[in-house]
Amino acid sequence: MKIVLLGSGNVATHLAKALKGKGEEIVQVYSQHLDNATILAQSIATEAIGDLNEIKQNADLYIISVKDDAIESIAKSLKNVTGLVVHTSGTTDINILSSQVTKAGVFYPLQTFSKEKEVSFENIPLCIEANDDSQLTILSNLAAKISREVYKLNGEKRKVLHLAAVFACNFPNHLYALANKILSQNNLDFEIIRPLIAETADKVMSNLPENVQTGPAVRADESTLNKHLSMLTDMPELQNIYQTLSDSIKLTLK
Amino acid sequence: MKIVLLGSGNVATHLAKALKGKGEEIVQVYSQHLDNATILAQSIATEAIGDLNEIKQNADLYIISVKDDAIESIAKSLKNVTGLVVHTSGTTDINILSSQVTKAGVFYPLQTFSKEKEVSFENIPLCIEANDDSQLTILSNLAAKISREVYKLNGEKRKVLHLAAVFACNFPNHLYALANKILSQNNLDFEIIRPLIAETADKVMSNLPENVQTGPAVRADESTLNKHLSMLTDMPELQNIYQTLSDSIKLTLK
Repeated sequence: MKIVLLGSGNVATHLAKALKGKGEEIVQVYSQHLDNATILAQSIATEAIGDLNEIKQNADLYIISVKDDAIESIAKSLKNVTGLVVHTSGTTDINILSSQVTKAGVFYPLQTFSKEKEVSFENIPLCIEANDDSQLTILSNLAAKISREVYKLNGEKRKVLHLAAVFACNFPNHLYALANKILSQNNLDFEIIRPLIAETADKVMSNLPENVQTGPAVRADESTLNKHLSMLTDMPELQNIYQTLSDSIKLTLK
Repeated sequence: MKIVLLGSGNVATHLAKALKGKGEEIVQVYSQHLDNATILAQSIATEAIGDLNEIKQNADLYIISVKDDAIESIAKSLKNVTGLVVHTSGTTDINILSSQVTKAGVFYPLQTFSKEKEVSFENIPLCIEANDDSQLTILSNLAAKISREVYKLNGEKRKVLHLAAVFACNFPNHLYALANKILSQNNLDFEIIRPLIAETADKVMSNLPENVQTGPAVRADESTLNKHLSMLTDMPELQNIYQTLSDSIKLTLK
C-alpha cells in the first residue's frame, strides 16, 4: 500500500517505523513544522512536506496522526483523495472524517508512546473502525501485519477504552512520579522501588487487579493509614491523593 | 542458621520458601491459628506450633512476620531467647523489639506478595537494620543469600520507602481495578488493556516517570479531560479521582 502519513509526533513515528518494517510504502510525511517532518521522513527514507497542498492525491491510505483538535482541518484538505483516510485518536469520532471524505476509518493503537523508548508493535492492541465493510477489511489486514491483537470497535467502545487507559497508564505513571518525589526528598533513589513497580504490573498479567490488591487500605489498617497521612503533612496535595485513593480502596471492602 | 518463623501470611510464606531454597534450616513455624502454621510448615517440611510457649529457645534467628499490631505481643514472648529477633514490617520501629530482647533487627522485603503468584526473591530489595553492627552483618549475609539488592536503612528511611511503595504499588493496582470497572461495564475485557499496563511499568525501568508522562492532563488537553469527566457522571467516585489526579499532573507543568 502507498501510505501518506500526516503527523510526526510519538504515535506517527512509532507507527511509521512499524509499517515500514513490514514492507509498506510510506510515500510522504507531512507536518506543519517541516523540520519535524524531515526528521521522521529521513529515518524512513521518504519525502517530507510542510504544505498540505503538496500531498499526493493517489495514495491508498492517509493516516492522520496529529493532536485531536487538528484532525478536522487536515481532513478538509483531503476532500479530493480517493484513498482511505483514517485518524489514530482514541476520543475522536469517525464522523469528523466521513463528513469530509468518502472512505473513512480509525486506526487507534492502545499504547503509551515516548520518543525515548522503542516499542514492539506486535503486542499493541490496534482498534479499528471504518465507514464500510470493505474498508474495514483493508484496515484489518493492515493491522494484522503489524500486531497480533486487532479489535474491531465502534466509536463508543473506543472512547471507553481511551478513558480506561488513562486510569491504567497515565495515572499510574503519575503515581510513580509522586513516589519518586517522596523518595528523592529523602535522598532515596528511584532504583530501589523499580522491582516493586515491575511486579505490581506483572501480577495483573495473569490476575484481575481487584483480586490481588495489597497495602494498608485493603487491610483497613487505620494505624498505618494515619501514620502515612501524618508523614504527608507538608505535602497537602499528596496527602489529598493518599486519602482519596485509600477511601476508594476501602469502598471495595463493603 | 536455625530459624523460627512467627507468622504464616504472604510475606512469611514467600520468605520461608526463599530461605529454605538457599539451605537455611527453618525449625518451627508459629501461627496463632495452628491450621495456617501447619499448611506452611508442611510445604517446607518442618514443625508447626500454635502456642508461643512451645517456641524453641535456642534458634539463631526469630523472624516475626505478622500484622504490625501483633508484633509487640509476640516479641514479649521471646524475652528469654539469645538469638537475633527481627520483624518484616515497613512501618514498625525497631524499638518495639529492642525494648524486649537483646538482639533486635528488621528484615523488610520491599515487594507485593500474593499467595496466587510466585516471586523470585533475587530481585526483591531487602531493607535491613539491627541494633548492633555484628547483628547487622549477620542479617546482611543472610539477605545477600536470597537477594541481589540489600539496603541498610534506618527506621525513618524505611518508613519513607513504605509510604512511597503505597504510591508505586497499591494505588496503581487500584487504578488498574478502576480501569477494569469501566471496561467491564461496557463489556470490554481487561485483556485488551494488559499490554498498556506492562509497557507503562516497563517504561520507568529505564526512565524516570516524570520524564515519560503521557495522556490528556500533561498535554493540558481540556477538551479530552472534559469529555472523560462527563463520561464519568454516573460514577462520581471515579470522576473525583479523575479530577484529583489530572489536577496533580497539571501542577507538574507549572
